[in-house]
Formats: sequence, C-alpha cells, structure tokens
Amino acid sequence: MRTAYRKQMIELAGQLGQMCGLAGVAMQRATQALLEADLVAAEGVIRDHERIVAMRAHAEKVAFDLLALQQPVAGDLRAIFSGIQIIADTERMGALAVHIAEIARREYPKHVLPQEVRGCFADMATVAIAMGQSAKQVLNTRDPQEAARLHEQDDAMDRLYRHLFDLLMDDDWNHGISVAVETALLGRFYERFADHAVEVGRRVVFAVTGTLPAGDQISTY
Amino acid sequence: MRTAYRKQMIELAGQLGQMCGLAGVAMQRATQALLEADLVAAEGVIRDHERIVAMRAHAEKVAFDLLALQQPVAGDLRAIFSGIQIIADTERMGALAVHIAEIARREYPKHVLPQEVRGCFADMATVAIAMGQSAKQVLNTRDPQEAARLHEQDDAMDRLYRHLFDLLMDDDWNHGISVAVETALLGRFYERFADHAVEVGRRVVFAVTGTLPAGDQISTY
Repeated sequence: MRTAYRKQMIELAGQLGQMCGLAGVAMQRATQALLEADLVAAEGVIRDHERIVAMRAHAEKVAFDLLALQQPVAGDLRAIFSGIQIIADTERMGALAVHIAEIARREYPKHVLPQEVRGCFADMATVAIAMGQSAKQVLNTRDPQEAARLHEQDDAMDRLYRHLFDLLMDDDWNHGISVAVETALLGRFYERFADHAVEVGRRVVFAVTGTLPAGDQISTY
Repeated sequence: MRTAYRKQMIELAGQLGQMCGLAGVAMQRATQALLEADLVAAEGVIRDHERIVAMRAHAEKVAFDLLALQQPVAGDLRAIFSGIQIIADTERMGALAVHIAEIARREYPKHVLPQEVRGCFADMATVAIAMGQSAKQVLNTRDPQEAARLHEQDDAMDRLYRHLFDLLMDDDWNHGISVAVETALLGRFYERFADHAVEVGRRVVFAVTGTLPAGDQISTY
C-alpha cells in the first residue's frame, strides 16, 4: 500500500514535469512556425496539444485517486494541492503555444510578423522557453530559490513586452492595423506563458514550504 | 466533528459563489469605468480586487484543511477538487476586470474606446456579466444543464469578439494603431472572462457527476 502510494506520488511529480516540458517544446515549435512561416511546425504544435490535454486528464486522475485512497498529509498533501493548480497552468501554457501556431498556420505562407518586430519575438521566445525549462527544473529540484529566479526571468519578459508596444506605437510603423493587432495579441501569448511559468514556481514553493509567496502586481501591459 | 465538516463544506461552497459574484461586480464596474470614463469606478475595481485575493487565500485554506483533516470522499472530494480549480478561475476573472479598470484609469479623462465599438463592448459586457451570474448560480444549484448553458452564452461572446475584429479591420477605422491595439486587448479580456466562467461550469459538472465535460475547441480569436 505504502509502496503504491510512493509510486503514485512520484508518478504525479513526473507528469507535472513532463507537461511543463511538453509546453516548452510546443512554445519552441510554435515560435519556429511563427518566425519561419513553417507550416509543418505549426501543425505539429496543434496536433500534439492532444497529448498535453490527455496528460492533464491523467494527472488529474492520479491526483484525485491519491486524495481519495491514500489520505496524504503535510508535504505530500501540499504537493498534490499544488499539483492540481500546476496541471491547469501547464495545460494553459500549451494552449498559448497552440494560439501562436494557429495564427502562423492561418497566415501561411505569409510571414505574420514584420521584420522589425521579429527580433523582439525571438527574444521573448528565448525567455519563454527558458522559463518553461526553469519551471520544469523547479518541479524536479523543488528548490525555492530557483523558483524565485522565475520572477527575474519574468521581469525580462515584461521589459520585452513593453518594448514590443513601443515598436507598435512608433510613428514609423507602416504595416497597418490588422498586423499591429495580431502582433500585440501574439506578444500577449508569450507574456501569459511566462506568467503561468511563474505560477508553477510559486505553487512549488507552497508545496515545499507551506507558504505561498506573494504574487506579482497585476500588470496590464 | 461531522457537524464542523458539513459547515466547512458549506463555507467553501459559499466562498466560491461569493468570489464569482465579486468577479461579476468587478466586471460590471470595470465596464462602467471603460464606457463612461469613470475614474471612481476604475479605482474601486482596482482597490476591491484585494478582497478577491484575500478570499482566494482563505478559500484555499478551507479546501486544504478539509482535505487534511476530514478525509472527504466521493462527491465531497470532487467538490473540493473542483473548488481548488474554481478558486483560480474566479480570481482570474477578477484580475481581468482589473486589467480593464487599469486601462480606463490610465487614459482618464479620455474615453479609451471610439464611439463605433462602444456598442460592441456594451454587448460583450452584458454577456460577460450574465455569465458571471450564471456561473454563480450554477455553483449554488449544481445543475449540469444550467452549466451547459454557459457554453451557449460563450458562443454569443465569441460572435461579439469576432464582430469587434471586423470593426477594427474595417477600412473606415481611423483611430490609429494604438487605439486599435488597446481595443483588441480589451476585447480579449472580456472574452477570457467568459472562458473562465465556462470553466467554472465544467468543474461544477465534474463535482456533481464525476465526469468532466469536453472543453471547447481552443479558439484563437
């Protein structure tokens, strides 16, 4: 009984890490789709999201069964409690990558982004993918100091996001309304991906310490 | 012991309903702030979000203590499991209202929205607020059929959201890039509010029936 319990706890932790990893891979390929107008990459992201959705259902079942059958307490209970929230965050991270891939697919073979914002998106993607990796690592190491570093990465994302709006609002912008709107929404998907990675870190800290660190100030953009 | 348990279960359910109600009120006032350039309303939404954040912390504690101390099973366990997710959804609904209020406050005394999209926003707000109420009611009645109706309301929101983009992309649009981008993001906040209300309904259905209804197709915009 106890061995099965331990195994299930390890299974849940492994699934959270895997979901986070898959979301990071999705973001990487979605960015490839966006920056290179790569239809195969876009369709891969959209198709593979099914895996994240299925993992969500499975991980929720593992978490539920642990609560129903094993009466976990203390740190284990906190890990499951946080796990339920992390499952939702990681699925959302994957869904945001799908949003990006869908736009790339819809516009194919056109490039969605004008040249002057591609560098900014490449940088946002680098930060987002690194944050996905950090979140995955935090899920493995359960190190609160590492989790706190996600906030610093998120600050970098916020700066890039603001920079994107400076580019959009610049008088030199000559790509029209529709491209500007699409670019802004795409930027928001990267920024939200980063927010969810921060949330994963906060929930891990709660699991480990029993205290939930303060959330960021809500930022609009 | 069992009486305390029942009381805590009722407390948790009540808090979820209250959080949902507060998010709906926040959306109503944020819309007032947006459509009437009403600074007092905007500041009220931003200030009162603290209440939703505090309720989130409290509701999570109630849910956690129930799991730790009462070993709930079956329907009660499902209600708590769903509750953990609903807490996150309702806080996010409140945060989306804050985003809207912050933009209204930043632009005050200017009106953020050009005349030709105000009607669309008024309609989106009507649907969003109704969905907040529906979600709250579903939390009370726990009626799966009522929860399913949230999908129909969400379809109405999706139509309005698409209509907003038609207005933005129209050749007659002459309010420039910056207003278009802000308008699009504001529209997205309403649309996401509705998505979270749908999620609340789905989680209630899981609590009642043990089966999670299929999610919507992911829509980009």
